[in-house]
Amino acid sequence: MNPLTTSSAPVRRADQRAVRQSNLSLVARRIAERGAISRAQLAKQTGLNKTTVSSLVAELIERGIVTESGLADGGGVGRPAQILELDDSRIAALGLEVNVDYLAVCVCDLRGAVRYHAAVGHDNRGNCPDVVLAALAELAAEALAECDTLGLTPIGAGVSLPGTIEAGTGTLIHAPNLGWDELAVGESLRAALGDPPFTITVGNDANLAALGELEAGALRGSQDGLLIYGNIGIGGAVIVDGAIFAGADGFAGEIGHMPVRPFDGEECRCGGRGCLETLAGQEAIARRVGIQGARSETLSPATLVAERAASGDPAVIAALDEVAEILGICIAAAVSLINPRRVVLAGTLGTLAPWLLPGARAAVVQRTTVAPTAVEIVGSELGDEAAIRGGAALVLHNVLSDPTCAPLPALSH
Amino acid sequence: MNPLTTSSAPVRRADQRAVRQSNLSLVARRIAERGAISRAQLAKQTGLNKTTVSSLVAELIERGIVTESGLADGGGVGRPAQILELDDSRIAALGLEVNVDYLAVCVCDLRGAVRYHAAVGHDNRGNCPDVVLAALAELAAEALAECDTLGLTPIGAGVSLPGTIEAGTGTLIHAPNLGWDELAVGESLRAALGDPPFTITVGNDANLAALGELEAGALRGSQDGLLIYGNIGIGGAVIVDGAIFAGADGFAGEIGHMPVRPFDGEECRCGGRGCLETLAGQEAIARRVGIQGARSETLSPATLVAERAASGDPAVIAALDEVAEILGICIAAAVSLINPRRVVLAGTLGTLAPWLLPGARAAVVQRTTVAPTAVEIVGSELGDEAAIRGGAALVLHNVLSDPTCAPLPALSH
Repeated sequence: MNPLTTSSAPVRRADQRAVRQSNLSLVARRIAERGAISRAQLAKQTGLNKTTVSSLVAELIERGIVTESGLADGGGVGRPAQILELDDSRIAALGLEVNVDYLAVCVCDLRGAVRYHAAVGHDNRGNCPDVVLAALAELAAEALAECDTLGLTPIGAGVSLPGTIEAGTGTLIHAPNLGWDELAVGESLRAALGDPPFTITVGNDANLAALGELEAGALRGSQDGLLIYGNIGIGGAVIVDGAIFAGADGFAGEIGHMPVRPFDGEECRCGGRGCLETLAGQEAIARRVGIQGARSETLSPATLVAERAASGDPAVIAALDEVAEILGICIAAAVSLINPRRVVLAGTLGTLAPWLLPGARAAVVQRTTVAPTAVEIVGSELGDEAAIRGGAALVLHNVLSDPTCAPLPALSH
Repeated sequence: MNPLTTSSAPVRRADQRAVRQSNLSLVARRIAERGAISRAQLAKQTGLNKTTVSSLVAELIERGIVTESGLADGGGVGRPAQILELDDSRIAALGLEVNVDYLAVCVCDLRGAVRYHAAVGHDNRGNCPDVVLAALAELAAEALAECDTLGLTPIGAGVSLPGTIEAGTGTLIHAPNLGWDELAVGESLRAALGDPPFTITVGNDANLAALGELEAGALRGSQDGLLIYGNIGIGGAVIVDGAIFAGADGFAGEIGHMPVRPFDGEECRCGGRGCLETLAGQEAIARRVGIQGARSETLSPATLVAERAASGDPAVIAALDEVAEILGICIAAAVSLINPRRVVLAGTLGTLAPWLLPGARAAVVQRTTVAPTAVEIVGSELGDEAAIRGGAALVLHNVLSDPTCAPLPALSH
């Protein structure tokens, strides 16, 4: 990206603001990418002059985005330069998640480190949205209190939901496994939190999980990838050019509807039959391994299945082998269609990855003409935290895109 | 794109050449996009100064890329300006195709109009590559003779093959339905043509068919799309941001391996079972409608099937209804995964589109949660010419990217 500079002709104030904002973002992103950099290096790398860089850095420091972290060794030439880094001591982002059977929250600082995390089991299926969002707001309030203790100012919350979200408005269109439709979740949550002074952004769980894994997990550095997000349903996200691929309407990634038994399979909520989701969703797996009804207050069905598999239960292992083959058949089809370099099993499927990966990999090798090394199939690195980490990452991306949304310190108190 | 301009500091000759080449491309592309434009408008729109634009346009005219087509009405202010357009009278691109059961060629001018077209039935399965390429060279030689008659100079040939092509080298890696492997088709064809003075580029048939439809057919203006290219096998191409999506290794688009009967279906050449291709490839359709063995010297099996369907044969129509549902099941899965705006049936499936579209559309509506209007499923507009048109388009794109590959007129003769 080239820096924007003001021309010598008179410029309107609105244009000047836009140029300043763009240059603040350019400098903040460069610092985020490099980790540690001096003002002189910034000037050289961005093409902005040193005076402009100093002024931009001063504002970024004031807004709590950048900090001076010490002196670099000047190599004996000239005086040593102050090293600039992202400031992890002043700004925080919240990640929030409503899943079908739990609620979760995390607080991340500007370097993406998790400073607080909490999750509670909560059966949200068919539950009244107001009740669920009140419980989520309670969890968020505890996280905000923790921000206070840590001296961090929250600048936004990213909320993960298991459904389709309308691009632009952030309205939840349809969350089949919650039974929610056409819901302005962001506004309701804002009301439940007493209108806090920060942005609330809503996203699809699989997309946010993929963003979390891209930022700090199994998709780090991926250009072409696929994340398969298993829970009650199975969603997913396609990665193109290192970013979440939206498709024409923002709904891309739904690998849960690959046909496996399209004629004689169980009816799927999409209207089809025998889709992947009907065979490898969390409850289908629980049924298949025979632990249906063996619900636990503290453990999710997937964790129960994983425990039995770890204990060597042959019936459970045989059932997971079947799931692995089904999953592999669908991954093979996705590999043929979109040719990803890396496929990540996340959510429930991530929990069960140790037992699913060998069979899924074998099915992909058998059912595609690609070389066995051409596609890596791996488990999630962030586990249950992927979607909330992605929610927080969304907020942190936004502040690097427009540093002026970070608050200036109050002038009086 | 910003124009590149030379800085005031001394610049090496290689850099000057690169800047000139880039600016030639900028101007040529702008003329191609706008259709008709004056030098003054070009200067305004590209940011290049008028003297530079005049010099660039002079070179483009000399190279046969641009022509002056008359005077624009100056609106009473100043003298009328010469209108610039792409020159369709001097440069030609060849599109060539080796398909499983035919060979084809076309000649396109710089505006993409087809000036010559020929196709011959030729059973290439298991046939020796040298024999097939000699027959293709013969067809190409007739096209080159026609170029001569038309006064067009051929600047390149784009060759369509039904197989995977190695990015970079253009080597055919694997064409299962031809039985060809690891073949430098471009070099062999060059030898068979007596080392002609133009580039020969090789591409996958489905990708070139999609490029043809993007340029002048059913995908014109599409940003997010999918083309399904049926023949003996079924390939395809994914469109992202208005261009062919390659995937990590250049193999994206292979929708022929969607699972339909993955456990009890027929073995597929990919190693799987019951893939779309085993159920809706040309021979599977011929078998299903009972015309296997009823080969015709002049008609492809798909054309025979289409004729019987058009005559109202109820058994054929019932068989095509089954194929339509299978196709719809696979399109529904692709819609869920990549959310295209437009899906195009091409090749054999394009020939049969009138009988396949209603059933395929119904299956997609039934088996996805998208609105019926969210994805348009249509037939190819270019039919059998799609891949050769795409081959020629590849060459024409290349000359707009680097106008210096167009020949300067000989200085003596």
